[in-house]
Amino acid sequence: MVDILHKVGIKSPASAVYTALTTPEGLAGWWTTDTKGDGAHIGGELQFRFAAGGFDMNVRDLDPGRHVLWEVVDGPEEWIGTHVDWTLTHSDDYTTVLFKHRDWKEPVEFMHHCSTKWATYLVSLKQLLETGTGAAHPDDVKIDSWD
Amino acid sequence: MVDILHKVGIKSPASAVYTALTTPEGLAGWWTTDTKGDGAHIGGELQFRFAAGGFDMNVRDLDPGRHVLWEVVDGPEEWIGTHVDWTLTHSDDYTTVLFKHRDWKEPVEFMHHCSTKWATYLVSLKQLLETGTGAAHPDDVKIDSWD
Repeated sequence: MVDILHKVGIKSPASAVYTALTTPEGLAGWWTTDTKGDGAHIGGELQFRFAAGGFDMNVRDLDPGRHVLWEVVDGPEEWIGTHVDWTLTHSDDYTTVLFKHRDWKEPVEFMHHCSTKWATYLVSLKQLLETGTGAAHPDDVKIDSWD
Repeated sequence: MVDILHKVGIKSPASAVYTALTTPEGLAGWWTTDTKGDGAHIGGELQFRFAAGGFDMNVRDLDPGRHVLWEVVDGPEEWIGTHVDWTLTHSDDYTTVLFKHRDWKEPVEFMHHCSTKWATYLVSLKQLLETGTGAAHPDDVKIDSWD
């Protein structure tokens, strides 16, 4: 198993970051404008759609202002069964977001792509909270011929 | 051992990407403006400096237009002995860059930070080659309270 790891520090309360990770409106502001579902309850499902496809997540753990855990239940084969894990801590005006997309079976080229793309979306999350405007799909940062 | 993995696709010849990875002028355009040394010969050393410190790399492998491998010989303790590995392939107008910062001992918080930061520098490399202007330090994308 191999993991994608990232970190951003956001000048925003942890509660605001948590809202951006658990509501369709928040998620639509930094990841993809086509977000539906229930991210605010354990067992809820979230549907994220992009031009090329999408991901369905089951919410596995929530601790308000501190932790969000999703399991991928539908999407590209390489993603199914992987976990997207968000840990939030707040100090010195920053909410630190430690991000892990865990449990990839192999470090395939698609994992390299997703690692870079996740980083651009985490910067988008930071921009959303600090400036009011993120860079969600379809206005996201393009990194290669795939997207 | 754990690895940081990334990918960008750049609308540019592989030879131009290779030059941006092996010359101080090229490296200064997307990573840090304070770059010195010899990146064009196996055994050469490169010195990269930032406001908070820097990295010294020994060039371990070169295959023009295809591969660049550095070993970190000085810098933060967590980086020493790790490898920065660049593989280039060209097709359909794109040079695909598969990037690996390999052989971290532990997935520490600093590794999360560096993973996100590397992604912003790879997007900077892409911008440099496609537009003529990258986002090298000190004008790089800030991601957290560390940088």
